[in-house]
Amino acid sequence: MQETKKSELPVLAIDLGGTKILTAIISNKGQVKAKERCLTLADEGPEVVINRILSAIDRLLSQGNINLSQLDSISIGAAGAIDFDRGLVTSSPHLPGWHDIPLRDIVKEKYRVNIFLINEANAAALGEHHLGAGQGVNNLILLTVGTGIGGGIIINGRLYSGVSGSAGEIGHMTIDVNGPRCDCGKTGCLEALVSGTAVAKEAIKRIRQGERSSLTEIVEGKIENITAEEVSIAAQGGDSLASEVILKAATYLGVGLANAVNIFNPEMIIISGGMAKMGDLLLNPARQVVKERAFQLSAQAVRIVPAQLGDDAGVLGAAVFAFQQEVD
Amino acid sequence: MQETKKSELPVLAIDLGGTKILTAIISNKGQVKAKERCLTLADEGPEVVINRILSAIDRLLSQGNINLSQLDSISIGAAGAIDFDRGLVTSSPHLPGWHDIPLRDIVKEKYRVNIFLINEANAAALGEHHLGAGQGVNNLILLTVGTGIGGGIIINGRLYSGVSGSAGEIGHMTIDVNGPRCDCGKTGCLEALVSGTAVAKEAIKRIRQGERSSLTEIVEGKIENITAEEVSIAAQGGDSLASEVILKAATYLGVGLANAVNIFNPEMIIISGGMAKMGDLLLNPARQVVKERAFQLSAQAVRIVPAQLGDDAGVLGAAVFAFQQEVD
Repeated sequence: MQETKKSELPVLAIDLGGTKILTAIISNKGQVKAKERCLTLADEGPEVVINRILSAIDRLLSQGNINLSQLDSISIGAAGAIDFDRGLVTSSPHLPGWHDIPLRDIVKEKYRVNIFLINEANAAALGEHHLGAGQGVNNLILLTVGTGIGGGIIINGRLYSGVSGSAGEIGHMTIDVNGPRCDCGKTGCLEALVSGTAVAKEAIKRIRQGERSSLTEIVEGKIENITAEEVSIAAQGGDSLASEVILKAATYLGVGLANAVNIFNPEMIIISGGMAKMGDLLLNPARQVVKERAFQLSAQAVRIVPAQLGDDAGVLGAAVFAFQQEVD
Repeated sequence: MQETKKSELPVLAIDLGGTKILTAIISNKGQVKAKERCLTLADEGPEVVINRILSAIDRLLSQGNINLSQLDSISIGAAGAIDFDRGLVTSSPHLPGWHDIPLRDIVKEKYRVNIFLINEANAAALGEHHLGAGQGVNNLILLTVGTGIGGGIIINGRLYSGVSGSAGEIGHMTIDVNGPRCDCGKTGCLEALVSGTAVAKEAIKRIRQGERSSLTEIVEGKIENITAEEVSIAAQGGDSLASEVILKAATYLGVGLANAVNIFNPEMIIISGGMAKMGDLLLNPARQVVKERAFQLSAQAVRIVPAQLGDDAGVLGAAVFAFQQEVD
């Protein structure tokens, strides 16, 4: 009986976000064989979150009746800045307390298989490029627009990750230097103006200032519970405050995308993440701004499209990353 | 007697800027064999400028006693947006009237040798990468900070020019969406805040508003004659208005560089162009802002350095580009 080749084994992929941890077994054909999700509970700090990751891995292995020798590797996409060489999550606006956490070695210590650690949005870019909206597109930018804004860059068909693995932080591009403070500490980042958090904050602020909106009823008067999702629902129902808030975010998104278009002259920009679910409500005004602000040739060359893989982009991309590496 | 191989012949390289046209014969070892410069006279429109380019080529060939069969090619770096496939200068804030000008074919028609046309700042990036400050550096960004701001991107040791040859317009990255209008038509571009033109404008504005400065004497009362060069001289002489104007530009430059650092995580950023002659007066405050605004890992990884090739970067880079191409 022939042994299965190492490279034909599946990857256990993890998407560590600020809100949820998604864990999946992914075949070398990019199929999701098993999947589970749990809350990150990021506010409880790194130790709790790490234990939740390890428990999620254990559950998935035991549910699928898989032992470690049947895995190619474990690959983690994490919502933070990654020191690729040392396998650290160096910092994260969405994972409080995470500073130089050696996540790769912690997971390696327990499971003794190959471990890969990349940035979550970089993983999503790889996922969409290999299996989603960006298939066959050699030069593309992906933005995950959710709680925060992450980015991934595909150049000449490969993930571009920079000299220390930190490239792609397009969400922390300053577009309004006198603008609101961002969770990263700077002012006027794309993230501070366009993320789901920014949209919710803006709606809450305006309602607290006395403006009327159907959002107040949607959240039964608990204004602080408004999220970008409710703003989207209210806008689709014709609420003018909600529509204005989304238009404002979409306009800023367009300014950021125009910058990316001028800098990269990419074939495609893919928008993923929670806010991408708004579809053309968000993307059409942004496309219009790109048309107005970017150089004509580059503006004409780019397609701005929603992601296709939904929440699975991160785990699929983390698996793609693992399969691409030279494994001993 | 053996014939000289085509690839060993020199390139006639041209740097078409908004102010001057530089023409040079460059050997395949990157040596400048002959060189001449003339004014662009951009305000007189494309026809005049094109005739000046053709005359400059003729003069250089005749002075060097070179005939066309002794050239590998003619390679032009132009200060504008380039449609690489069609060999057009599609537009340029610094060359009034240039819209879809088929510069490649115009030059080809007259000289019947291989003609290459790329963006001037892209050429400068290639030049500095192969022969200047960026030798041996695989991932770098170059910014030419002069009358305008151009950019060039080297990724994995190669010029990255995007899907239609227009990548690298870092000067037209919006960093202050409510900021001053740029020559490109948008607001708050890096160019509108940091270029030599912006620096001169700011100094002139403040003096016209009644502020005192040694600049007034330097230009003998002709305030409108102030250029960035005089502002630099005045600042070095201790003039406080001039120092403040440069510090403001350097701070904005730092915001733009921090964006580039977060996006590209490059090993090096090279600053070339007229403003680069200010040296640490401009670069030190910019470096400080990068340290404060960019992600730590990326900020630590990048060296921000002045260019080494001076005014020759464009012609040298245009020649490097020609030598890199597959020539029939």
